[in-house]
Parts: sequence; C-alpha cells; structure tokens
Amino acid sequence: MSNYFFDYASTTPIDEKILKKMYLFDQKYFANASSIHQIGQESFNFLQEARTTIARSLNCQLEEIIFTASATESNNLALKGIALAYKAKGKHILVSQIEHDCILNSALYLKTLGYEIEFLKVNQFGLIDLNNLKAKIRPDTILVSVMTANNEIGTINPIKQIGQICKSKNVLFHTDACQAYTKIAIDVVKNNLDLLTLSSHKIYGPKGVSVLYKKNNVKLIPILHGGEQENNYRSSTYNLTAIMGLSWAVTKAFKLQKSETLKLTHLRDYFITNIVKKIKNIKLNGHPTKRLYNNAHFSFAGVEGESLLLRLSHYGIYVSTGSACSSKKLTGSYVLKALNLNPYFAHGSIRFSFGRLTTQSDIDYLIKILTQEINFLRQISPFTKFK
Amino acid sequence: MSNYFFDYASTTPIDEKILKKMYLFDQKYFANASSIHQIGQESFNFLQEARTTIARSLNCQLEEIIFTASATESNNLALKGIALAYKAKGKHILVSQIEHDCILNSALYLKTLGYEIEFLKVNQFGLIDLNNLKAKIRPDTILVSVMTANNEIGTINPIKQIGQICKSKNVLFHTDACQAYTKIAIDVVKNNLDLLTLSSHKIYGPKGVSVLYKKNNVKLIPILHGGEQENNYRSSTYNLTAIMGLSWAVTKAFKLQKSETLKLTHLRDYFITNIVKKIKNIKLNGHPTKRLYNNAHFSFAGVEGESLLLRLSHYGIYVSTGSACSSKKLTGSYVLKALNLNPYFAHGSIRFSFGRLTTQSDIDYLIKILTQEINFLRQISPFTKFK
Repeated sequence: MSNYFFDYASTTPIDEKILKKMYLFDQKYFANASSIHQIGQESFNFLQEARTTIARSLNCQLEEIIFTASATESNNLALKGIALAYKAKGKHILVSQIEHDCILNSALYLKTLGYEIEFLKVNQFGLIDLNNLKAKIRPDTILVSVMTANNEIGTINPIKQIGQICKSKNVLFHTDACQAYTKIAIDVVKNNLDLLTLSSHKIYGPKGVSVLYKKNNVKLIPILHGGEQENNYRSSTYNLTAIMGLSWAVTKAFKLQKSETLKLTHLRDYFITNIVKKIKNIKLNGHPTKRLYNNAHFSFAGVEGESLLLRLSHYGIYVSTGSACSSKKLTGSYVLKALNLNPYFAHGSIRFSFGRLTTQSDIDYLIKILTQEINFLRQISPFTKFK
Repeated sequence: MSNYFFDYASTTPIDEKILKKMYLFDQKYFANASSIHQIGQESFNFLQEARTTIARSLNCQLEEIIFTASATESNNLALKGIALAYKAKGKHILVSQIEHDCILNSALYLKTLGYEIEFLKVNQFGLIDLNNLKAKIRPDTILVSVMTANNEIGTINPIKQIGQICKSKNVLFHTDACQAYTKIAIDVVKNNLDLLTLSSHKIYGPKGVSVLYKKNNVKLIPILHGGEQENNYRSSTYNLTAIMGLSWAVTKAFKLQKSETLKLTHLRDYFITNIVKKIKNIKLNGHPTKRLYNNAHFSFAGVEGESLLLRLSHYGIYVSTGSACSSKKLTGSYVLKALNLNPYFAHGSIRFSFGRLTTQSDIDYLIKILTQEINFLRQISPFTKFK
C-alpha cells in the first residue's frame, strides 16, 4: 500500500497476516456452516469460535451477536428491525443529526412508512445535548440512535450517560460504534446498550462482514428472510472466512490497543500542532479532547476541499472531504453544516485519519506537501483575504 | 478439500487460482471504491471491470447489475423491492411452491404486510404448469418468481416460456438462477427476464457476494439505505475483492462450460445407472431429462435420510438431505412434499451434487459405500419389507 494513506476512517488496509490466514483457511474450510455433515459442523464450530471472540470484546452473550455483511446492513437492521417490532408501542424515533448516511437514510425511509423521526441537534463540537435528549423522549419513543464517535470529525459522544437516560426512560438505545470499536472500550452492559453496530473493514479486517449486537429479549424484525440463520434474525449462507478474519482482527486490535492509542495520539497531536503553526486561517473541527485518537479534521479558509484532495492525491497522499459513502455527491457535508461552520471554512474541509501503518516520516511529508498546496491554492483563490 | 464432497449444490470450494488472485489483489487494492482520491478511483475502475464481465454473461447493461452480499439478499431485494415499488398497481404475487427458503419466507413476510401470495403448484417432476400460470395471472398481479433450476432436485423450469407469458400479461418476472447460472445459458433479453439472482459461492467464487440483475426502468425500493451505492438500489461499502473473485469465477465457468457439462453429465449418469442397478426400491427424484447436469436426487425406501447422511459422513462422504439452509430444521423437505412422494421414500432422500473436482474414482467409491450403508440401514430398519 501507499505510505501516504491518511484515510483510515473510510477503510483500513487488511492486516497482512490476517489476510494470509484467511487465504489458508478458505482453502480448507469451505463447507456450508449450516450443513449437518462433518465438514459442515467443522465450519459451524469455527463460526462459534469467532462469535465467542467478538462477544467477549463487548461483554455480551454469544446469541446476542448477529453477523451481517456490512455496517450499513447492521444499522438498517437495527433501525428498521426495531421500528417494525415496536410499532405497537410507538412510532417516534430519535437519531442524532450527524449519524452516518445509513442511519439517516434508514430513518428517512421509516418516515415514509409513517414513523416520526426527530433529529437530535449537536453543538459546535458535534456533541449531543443530554438535557435536550431527556426532553425529547416521549412515551411513544421507541428508539434512540446516537453514534459512539462520528466518522467525519471524530467526536466521541457520552454513550454511558445516553444509555442511562434511555434505560431510565425505558427506551431502546442503539449506537453505531464503527469508528470507535477497538479504539475505546465499549462494554454493552456498563453502557446500557440494547444494540450496537461494529464493522470489520474499519479495524484491519476484511470487507463484507459486520456485526449487530442485540440484547437478549429485545425484539427485532429481520430484513433478510430465508434459511433462518442467526436465530432467524439474519438469513444467508455464512461468509465464514470473512467472519474468521473479523474475529482475528478483533483479537489483534485489542492486543495492540494500548500501544496504538499511544502512538497515534502522539502522531495526531504532532500533526495538529505543526499544521496550526504553519498554516494560518484554519480551524480544527470536532471536540478538542473528546475525539478519536486517529482523527484530525481541518477546515482551511479560502481553499476548495475537493481541489486540495485531488492535488494531494497527485503526491500519493490520500485523504477525504467527508465520508467515502457520501463523497461522490459533492453536496457538502451535512456534518459540517450541523456544526454551523462559517462557509469560508466549510468548503475547505479535509478529514485526515491515521492508522496502524502511519509513521512519523509520513506525517512530516504530509505536513510539507499540505502546507505547500494550501499556499498554492490560496494564491489562485478568488478570496483575496487569505492570500 | 476432501475427495468425497458431493454437496456442490450447497456450496462449492473456491477455485484455488481465484483465491490466490484475490489474496494478491486485496493486499494491493483495498481503497474504498467510493473515495474520490486516486486509489479510490482505481478500486472503482476494477469494480466496473467486474460489472462488465457479469453483464456480458447475462447479455444486459452495466447499470442493470446490482451487487449484493448474498443470494438471500438478492432474492429479498427482488421480492420486497418490487412489492413495495408496485403496490399501487396491485398486491398479488405468484411464486412456485418449491422456491428456496429465502423466496418463500420473503413472500410470507410480504403476506404480513397485506400482500396476497399464491404458490404455483409443481408436478411430480418439479415443473410448474404453464397453463396454470396463465390462469393465475390477474390484473393486480405484479410479480412472478420461478427459479430457473431447483436447488434440491435439479429440475429446470421453462423460463423462456414463463418469460413470454409474463411479458404478454405485462407482469414482472424474476428468476432465482443460483443453481443454473453458468451451467445453462441464460440470456435476460431472450428470456424476457426483469430480475435475476445469481450467486458466487455456487460457481467456485467467494462467499459473501451475489448479484441482482434488474432491467432498466423496472422500479425497485431498496432494502439497504445509506451511501447510495449501486444507483441507490443497494448501499454499503463495496466488497471489491469478493466482487473481483466473482467476476473471475464467471469468466472461468464460461470457459469450462462445455467440458464441464460433458464430464459431469457423464459422471452423473454413470452414478445414476449404477445405483439403480445395485440398489432396489429407490426412486430418482426430479425430471429425468430436464435437470441440472450435476444433480442426482434419490429416495431410498426404508432408510432414514439423516442416518444415511451421518454414516456416509464417517466415510468422508459429504451429501445433503435438502438445502443446507433448511437442513438443521429436520422438518422434512417441502420440495419433496410438493412432489407427493410416498412417505416411505420421502424420509430417505439424499441429494448428490457433483462438481469440478469430482472424478470417476470418487463416484466409484461413493457407489460402493452407499450400497453398503443402505444395505446396513435396511437390515436394522423396522420396515421389514425392504430388507
């Protein structure tokens, strides 16, 4: 891979040792884990081994893990599955306004089915207001969905307090933990979580596999009907090799948790400090301290984000203007809009996300080229005041 | 893999060369195909290359290919997506009674939403009755779903005629072609197909990827909302390596199509001829000629199917009693029930499905052990007449 990949929040390169293990595993254990013959049972045993690893990482039961094919699927299943299962109780759902597209668009779809969706506002740092949450919960509220950490600006929400509020008000709580999982500790019991989404390809595991944790006794209507795998919550032939890859990625991420936190916090802070020193008229978005250790999100006044991204790309530097899923829409980030950024800043925003393979010299190169390119773009910018 | 795997209809071992290619590909091209930087665009170009291969194999347009994560997902998307998109026209849907679980259970789910589902009966060979189909189509019928070839008994339905009927009656036609794709030619234009499901792991490709072909101008409500990938019909980060693996498997399957047809038809017929000679009181299920070249489905009177399966498994011989997805339910096959088999026969049914790695000597071993084990089980059977 390139040395100058700073887009780990969009996807991570798969861990090379895990990829090798998957390659060897898939040659040997290809049988359908639902088959009752011996090699089908062997596959099933591996499946349960993977399930155990993931359940332990969240402090939940084996049967509370539902394997899916993507975080988008897990989030769709959480929102739609709960909405359909609890419609007798109510049709009011609260989601934060800066959730990932797959939560927002699932919520908007539910709106077309007669559900009432309210979007929880965030403050200038991307944090939701706990008092506002309390005030918004009604007797017919069935679900609150607030992400653990935001995918664009990296802000970490107080999910423990949100969990307490939801529990006290008898409302289900779902969190999309795709960006936070393995980076910060998430105990589903201590945090009163009813549902949680995690993703494999954000933690150096393979693409095409994800998990929805669903607390026992919480009802859920499936979105994929069929062979009744996963206690009938999610039908499909098991993608066993990918599931094993995810479980190995989980084990490795927790093994490296401390050292990566230290290393990446240092590199990220080094990057921020230097950029702030070298480039004028910039703004760090997200919360100054309550943020993922690998995220730095900057707005550069007088610069067009896409232009900067493409110029950096010529130097082999890969970054994002927003989430990858939304990036082709070019409509501007709804996350930044929610923060009420000055438009001068909003249009020149770049997410830098670092990861396991990022080194000090990579960051030095990034700082050098970024400074140079922003100077260049500001020179040709019609906004003379930033030249 | 074991030499005595005769369960290719449940899943195929992945082609070793394709697995190796995927392993090398994934190390290099991990970037999110929705990212706009250079390596994201590289990923996107590969995605379109895979899409082209698959579109050509079906004689359809690039934008008519929707990548999903499983045939279950494709089938759910076809049924639910059409049902929701065309509810203004009507709520009547026709599906054959021997569809895969994921079609039947999707249809039953739609029933809970107020749709009227009618199950098309099949004859003793598993074929649907074209006159009955014509008679059942009403002005409010929106969709007919009939599988190209059945997963248990291998019977091939006359999809060209079904397509003509549906076209003449202005009703959409979906076929689940998972078992048939690459084994028989399927041209979506010539067959008047509006929707078609195909699966990767049935054709020596990876698990976790599938396709729904959807004709242009056919409306579809997505079941996964999010980043609006696949023209908004199916959101999720692209599982690019798996998609590439599928496309390579398609290319290889068509390259080998003639030789595999010849080889497997011969081996399958050799197996059938010998088994019929050596074992009394047996019945070949499915159609004598209109069947997949790799399927032999037998009922052995006076034998319990699961017992036979487990005894064969001790000899390293892996077969199925029904579809893998349903096999743990032990409720008996609804496919065989639909054929009106004598219960003596129905309970002793085994699907033998052969594939690319099956050899003549594998079949000889199967014939030997199968004969021996059936004799043994009949000796201990309470049904004295078969001893």
